[in-house]
Amino acid sequence: MFRAAVASADPAKVVGFLPGKPKGRCIVVGAGKASAAMAAAVDAAWPDVELSGVAVTRYGHAVPAGRIEIIEASHPVPDAMSVEAGRRALSAVQTLGAEDLVIALFSGGGSSLLVAPAGDLTLEDKQEVNRRLLASGASISEMNTVRKHLSRVKGGKLARAAHPARVMTFVISDVPGDDPAIIASGPTISDNTTLADAREILGRYSIPLSPRLRTFVNGKDQLAEATPFSSEVHMIATPLMALDAAAEIARQAGFIPLLLGDALEGEAREMGKVLGGIAASVRNKGAPVQPPAVLLSGGEGTVTLHSKSDGRGGRNTEFSLALGAALQGMPNTYAIAADTDGIDGVEDAAGAVITPSTLSRGMSAGLDAHDALARHDSYTYFKTIGDLLVTGPTLTNVNDFRAIVIV
Amino acid sequence: MFRAAVASADPAKVVGFLPGKPKGRCIVVGAGKASAAMAAAVDAAWPDVELSGVAVTRYGHAVPAGRIEIIEASHPVPDAMSVEAGRRALSAVQTLGAEDLVIALFSGGGSSLLVAPAGDLTLEDKQEVNRRLLASGASISEMNTVRKHLSRVKGGKLARAAHPARVMTFVISDVPGDDPAIIASGPTISDNTTLADAREILGRYSIPLSPRLRTFVNGKDQLAEATPFSSEVHMIATPLMALDAAAEIARQAGFIPLLLGDALEGEAREMGKVLGGIAASVRNKGAPVQPPAVLLSGGEGTVTLHSKSDGRGGRNTEFSLALGAALQGMPNTYAIAADTDGIDGVEDAAGAVITPSTLSRGMSAGLDAHDALARHDSYTYFKTIGDLLVTGPTLTNVNDFRAIVIV
Repeated sequence: MFRAAVASADPAKVVGFLPGKPKGRCIVVGAGKASAAMAAAVDAAWPDVELSGVAVTRYGHAVPAGRIEIIEASHPVPDAMSVEAGRRALSAVQTLGAEDLVIALFSGGGSSLLVAPAGDLTLEDKQEVNRRLLASGASISEMNTVRKHLSRVKGGKLARAAHPARVMTFVISDVPGDDPAIIASGPTISDNTTLADAREILGRYSIPLSPRLRTFVNGKDQLAEATPFSSEVHMIATPLMALDAAAEIARQAGFIPLLLGDALEGEAREMGKVLGGIAASVRNKGAPVQPPAVLLSGGEGTVTLHSKSDGRGGRNTEFSLALGAALQGMPNTYAIAADTDGIDGVEDAAGAVITPSTLSRGMSAGLDAHDALARHDSYTYFKTIGDLLVTGPTLTNVNDFRAIVIV
Repeated sequence: MFRAAVASADPAKVVGFLPGKPKGRCIVVGAGKASAAMAAAVDAAWPDVELSGVAVTRYGHAVPAGRIEIIEASHPVPDAMSVEAGRRALSAVQTLGAEDLVIALFSGGGSSLLVAPAGDLTLEDKQEVNRRLLASGASISEMNTVRKHLSRVKGGKLARAAHPARVMTFVISDVPGDDPAIIASGPTISDNTTLADAREILGRYSIPLSPRLRTFVNGKDQLAEATPFSSEVHMIATPLMALDAAAEIARQAGFIPLLLGDALEGEAREMGKVLGGIAASVRNKGAPVQPPAVLLSGGEGTVTLHSKSDGRGGRNTEFSLALGAALQGMPNTYAIAADTDGIDGVEDAAGAVITPSTLSRGMSAGLDAHDALARHDSYTYFKTIGDLLVTGPTLTNVNDFRAIVIV
């Protein structure tokens, strides 16, 4: 099911959405974990077009893309290469005419990979805010609203720089609601958030601001005065498409798939308890569905770190461990939770697998699931018992994938 | 739907489960929010039996029960009347013969209402542990395991005191799995937890112990050596029966009821986010069910207080506010979350109602939902906008009831 979900989000699907070849030049600009693979597909599809461009992906996610330059940068915290990518992307689209075409390729991760600090802000200013936001429990949407207003490229500003060229945007979504304005912070999408929204979010999560940042966020909202523009958007892969692909596999194997939602949010460990409760109800009460069944869900949990945390783990391993603890070895019940990009946060695993013997095997290895959860050490737990799911980068990203199988 | 759920748990249903009248005496012993109402029904059903006894309920939940004495005591933290109830209950069953019958009537809340400190422990010792446990985020099952081992009445010890009389137990369940050993801490139910389990839970939540408590929990496990016994148990009402009754109302109104589970657990605010995500999926994607639909769930969320919390609220109002914040005014979506006993924690409301205008009405009243959540002040939020659900004590308890209606 996980493999089917990832396959449904193959970046090469972008080729099926391309328009007729442009009369003028074609500039490809991409950002996100899937952008290099999408760029490679476009390069291969249009050998006879005057094509160039730049795409920035996460370290380890690069693939050769012919005439399109591939840059690697840091995720989830941007680095100097992210700024270099932002500079080259803006420069690449700035001299285009009305007959020219911009192919914009965005996917999850783009927000930290394509960076151009606004005003007199520095990368360090933005990095500090990003780091604080990631540890605060803020949702990805909230984080992106803030990023957008500290940037010269996000929130439609790249498309403005490309004027008067035609801009077409192709998106692989990893966010709730599949809003293209949120993915990679929408460099080619007209924005309707305001600097005031960003200010409110920074306040809500008590993010400390340097004097320079404070002056900027309390200053004039540049975006509020900008001219509106339009950009064609094609959604080539989404979490729902991925979950539907998994559901089909379940159905073929004789299981009833029940999609709980493609955009579940909440603290990962608590989501584990709640979905564990639903799984127990399936097994014990035959509701909301009779077994054999599969509970499918997408979206992205959060992990709020406490200062005393000394453990390692991402939201999928943390979800998995909490689920395992909630199920308490429930027979005939198996689960997988993994990031479809192959990287569960900053760890070298996509996620983990749960079986009825997860807790007992942990105990045999001297591990206590509650203790590991308290220390946010879920990665170590699953690594020790050999139940990490390790895929390497999948070159795409339709957010998290969770399946709970009740036989 | 909420009214149907409460009606399904009418304490008078106990009469339908009574055996033939006993040859000897009948002693009624009860504990829990529904125990006075159950006792009254037994008293009325058997006017010609030599019947007496004692039932302890929460302050405000008493009803006259004829020959059965009704005591009111404190919940969720026990008081001196809880100890008095424990003393009288033990005394009432101690001189019975083999022809006599004990009718034991238990429901949620009984754990704090029927108290008999073990060994040289005092009520204050137990109160301190209870208070710490309630604020720790421990589940009701975990709290009851600890309570059981600090008691002379819980964990089957009341039934042992009644030997050689026949013991019949009638239960209204408010706990996941409807385990009668957990409800009111199972005074007539053989126990399989150990003092070591209690010790482990106290450690897991870092509950500080006085020297006297520490000596006791590290001492000899009295229960481990006791003779096994049996007691007939009848479950007269459960969360699932209540949710089924609500589902029938939904069905009659043309909505598809989907039971997510009768025993969901997790931090109330995170459960609000997760179920909000499922509701959004119903509305936006038609999964896991097509609207018009009702998502039903039972069980009990927890509220973990932070030291800086200055607000008021229970788990149902906190769940509701988090749900409202997650739904962000989603059209045609309504919800209710309430404790079926009529009391959401220690507040004078059963819970709250969510409508598409919850957040906007809050804003008009100068309230910010995120701020109220951060301060655990959900009760004040709903009180201000007039959306508390106030029922007064319902005299029964099948735990929390949640319904999310997507029109």
